[in-house]
Amino acid sequence: MEYPSSLIEEAVNQISRLPGIGKKTALRLALHLLKQDELETTSLTAALAKLRKDTRYCSTCHVISHTTDCTCKTIKTDLSTICVVEDTPDVMAIQNTGQYHGMFHVLGGVISPIDGIGPDDVHIDTLVKRISASNGEIKEVILAISPTMEGDTTAFYITKKLKGLSVKISTIARGIPIGGELEYTDEVTLGRSIISRRDYHQD
Amino acid sequence: MEYPSSLIEEAVNQISRLPGIGKKTALRLALHLLKQDELETTSLTAALAKLRKDTRYCSTCHVISHTTDCTCKTIKTDLSTICVVEDTPDVMAIQNTGQYHGMFHVLGGVISPIDGIGPDDVHIDTLVKRISASNGEIKEVILAISPTMEGDTTAFYITKKLKGLSVKISTIARGIPIGGELEYTDEVTLGRSIISRRDYHQD
Repeated sequence: MEYPSSLIEEAVNQISRLPGIGKKTALRLALHLLKQDELETTSLTAALAKLRKDTRYCSTCHVISHTTDCTCKTIKTDLSTICVVEDTPDVMAIQNTGQYHGMFHVLGGVISPIDGIGPDDVHIDTLVKRISASNGEIKEVILAISPTMEGDTTAFYITKKLKGLSVKISTIARGIPIGGELEYTDEVTLGRSIISRRDYHQD
Repeated sequence: MEYPSSLIEEAVNQISRLPGIGKKTALRLALHLLKQDELETTSLTAALAKLRKDTRYCSTCHVISHTTDCTCKTIKTDLSTICVVEDTPDVMAIQNTGQYHGMFHVLGGVISPIDGIGPDDVHIDTLVKRISASNGEIKEVILAISPTMEGDTTAFYITKKLKGLSVKISTIARGIPIGGELEYTDEVTLGRSIISRRDYHQD
């Protein structure tokens, strides 16, 4: 595509490097910014620059936190459970359910040999250290990792690493989502939902 | 939604002001930037800031141009035709067809009383001035405006304004798009395509 100005071309190139944004969308966004007040652009660029520059990760649980009062250090948190997740959006998703009040541990990825990500590239060692350093205060580890091949491998590796520590390991329930149609559920999920069946009035 | 840090919240708010980007996509983009090298973010913000600050519009044809050699002033351009379009993407779309080598005139919008855009808010007066100042050098005005209610109103207004100037006014052909199915074409388009029928071997 020919662009009317090299400034637009450069902006389009930069915007389209973002995931899920192609050249056409990038052009639409660039032209949108051109039509808005200049303040609109400066607020956007300032927010992005500040985000990238000032964001810190908690050294204990690896959750994003720009201040020192990470959720893992607040008094309100239940210090006996730790929920292990792949990344920050998972922390947010679980927090938004309002059903969990314990601590988190962000792995920062899952073990995926095909992508060159080994056990040492995700924060498993800090998880083990955290649990053994708690002297029994941490009673349960909930593995909330996506049920993919890589996720399952990671979960298996973690359980192996935690062997010997007196901590209960659980995993979030797999089954048919609320509102899901039995007919259209894949067989693996359906099979697991039968294996993990519960007494009818237990809920 | 609860964000793990106010930096992310601010970035998400700013990104989601862009058209077609919701909070979820904005969060995904923000977290993507956090995972990339810091240089990725600085190149993006620099390109956007430069785009907004340095972009200029040609005072003659209103096409975006950051230098003084706008296409309307280059020798290669056919100076006898002027193509009137609504906005910059239209200029690019027509240039990319390789079928047009004349000048452009960007209106910067179409007349739309419901949105409070009157004839004085789009660049019609400069078009009239441009044609009358050319002393007959501009022989044809091609109206390449979208066939919407507002577009048709704008085209009608322009033809009225150009009355008395010895210039031919044409409009791009309406009809069934290449590859389009006759059966699924709306009646107005189909009707127009019959009225504007051409001799079979003319193409």
